[in-house]
Amino acid sequence: MRKYNLGIDIGGTSIKIGLFDLDGNLRDVYSLKTNILENGKYILTDIANLLKKKLNVSEIRAIGFGVPGPVAKNIIINCVNLGWQRKDIVTEFKEVIGDNEILIRVANDANLAAAGEIYKGVASGYVNAFMVTLGTGIGGGVIIDGRVVDGINGVAGEIGHTHIDDLFDLKCNCGKSGCLETVASATGIVRLAKEYLKQSDKPSILRNFPDFSAKKVIDLAKANDELAQEIISKSMEYLARVLAKVSYIINPDIFIIGGGISNAGNFIIEQITKHYYPLVMPFIKHTNFEIATLGNEAGMFGACYLIK
Amino acid sequence: MRKYNLGIDIGGTSIKIGLFDLDGNLRDVYSLKTNILENGKYILTDIANLLKKKLNVSEIRAIGFGVPGPVAKNIIINCVNLGWQRKDIVTEFKEVIGDNEILIRVANDANLAAAGEIYKGVASGYVNAFMVTLGTGIGGGVIIDGRVVDGINGVAGEIGHTHIDDLFDLKCNCGKSGCLETVASATGIVRLAKEYLKQSDKPSILRNFPDFSAKKVIDLAKANDELAQEIISKSMEYLARVLAKVSYIINPDIFIIGGGISNAGNFIIEQITKHYYPLVMPFIKHTNFEIATLGNEAGMFGACYLIK
Repeated sequence: MRKYNLGIDIGGTSIKIGLFDLDGNLRDVYSLKTNILENGKYILTDIANLLKKKLNVSEIRAIGFGVPGPVAKNIIINCVNLGWQRKDIVTEFKEVIGDNEILIRVANDANLAAAGEIYKGVASGYVNAFMVTLGTGIGGGVIIDGRVVDGINGVAGEIGHTHIDDLFDLKCNCGKSGCLETVASATGIVRLAKEYLKQSDKPSILRNFPDFSAKKVIDLAKANDELAQEIISKSMEYLARVLAKVSYIINPDIFIIGGGISNAGNFIIEQITKHYYPLVMPFIKHTNFEIATLGNEAGMFGACYLIK
Repeated sequence: MRKYNLGIDIGGTSIKIGLFDLDGNLRDVYSLKTNILENGKYILTDIANLLKKKLNVSEIRAIGFGVPGPVAKNIIINCVNLGWQRKDIVTEFKEVIGDNEILIRVANDANLAAAGEIYKGVASGYVNAFMVTLGTGIGGGVIIDGRVVDGINGVAGEIGHTHIDDLFDLKCNCGKSGCLETVASATGIVRLAKEYLKQSDKPSILRNFPDFSAKKVIDLAKANDELAQEIISKSMEYLARVLAKVSYIINPDIFIIGGGISNAGNFIIEQITKHYYPLVMPFIKHTNFEIATLGNEAGMFGACYLIK
């Protein structure tokens, strides 16, 4: 009897596998290292071998995969971190696992993090959500009417590369300048801080450090360091400007803030909302802002949501 | 036998009623003037009376309504032009028409224009679309996976009020400044042109006119008037910046350009795309830009799409 669903989050360094019963209860978690050798050709076999060792494959009803790259209509467009080019993981994994009856779906991991938070996290009960993950980069996920939105090229939600302004004109990894990611991700906050330290004479404890983390800037802002406050406020203003546009485009019920920066909790939500609300019509007032609660497990839950 | 669907577009001056067979073929069109007296209390009765005169009500399977205001979950939030506040048109119209079995749905007219173009217009066959209507104001409609997206407050697609920049700082009807509508709608193009005429010394045939329309500015731009070209280019740059954000948020297959300004045809698409493409990742290349083809009938077709 097919009595299990699997949510599998394939990351650049590790793979998390959640074993769920058909009622959506997490029964077990397996993990393995991601072998990116030879353009990631061992990844699917490694997963299949682990599953064969742990489970009776004929008991698997469905598998949802989350991957770190754009996906459209269950086809992976590319995953730079895994060494994967365009890939039909649905067909390939059915072959590798040797069972053609398993339902398989795949989506981008940032979109699945949003799905996970709707399924088992802070956005439980919501059906229209936008999640932004403020980590090394910026990821974003879109859920509309309870469904994960991929987009035609698989880039739905990827607000990290929206162009904000040319004031600081910081170069982005994507090759362009002035992307949101260059000022509002964890690395972006540090870059913005260094610009502020150069361009301003204002005293700040930040000046005591030759190098520092985004967390340091946030901690100093919380501790009333005026320049650090200006930096965080400016950084979150850029984010708020993009989120206001998200509201005018899809008008979600809830914004979920995840990633390392979200550890700053309500402080970071206050920094975003003080800029967000003046930018939207007074009657866009129902949008909730919440900190994500599932952390690194969001993708695994979201992958299960995809096939539940 | 219930053998007809109706698509009804309620506008501020007239109401268009499309009679469709169950295969989606338009069989007849009725229209009537919108009576906005006494806060639009006669509108639904007027429609019901016309339908009773023209049809056997028991032959109606379903009715889709389009209205000029925000709608969420089939509840109208408000329609300023009709004098309507929050309104449950589904329940009310079933009472007025005296048939509880008719399926009724309602959505915002700009969203339905997008649906209409997908159903019977230029975007036929697409399932993810963003339509922008460049008229007196700017309307926008979102279709994802073939479904009309309302948003929690009914403002999905309303990009006219996204804040662009404070360079010209033009006041918008919504009470804010710097909205896209103030520079990229038909009235916005005129306002932007007047700013350019003030701030620049460049000669232009526009200076011969004490007043002019957006069409005049576009016609002069087409005829190589340099200042008019700068104005249209700048106006469409602002629009392109917002559409690039739309691409990073929902990544649609197609942008449909409608409204009076779209009569400028390919010229206006060229003006948008020359700014749009440099703002998006090279692989967001599948987005098509097309001029809407259904004109004022798009809403009627879209209303039928809602209940087909």
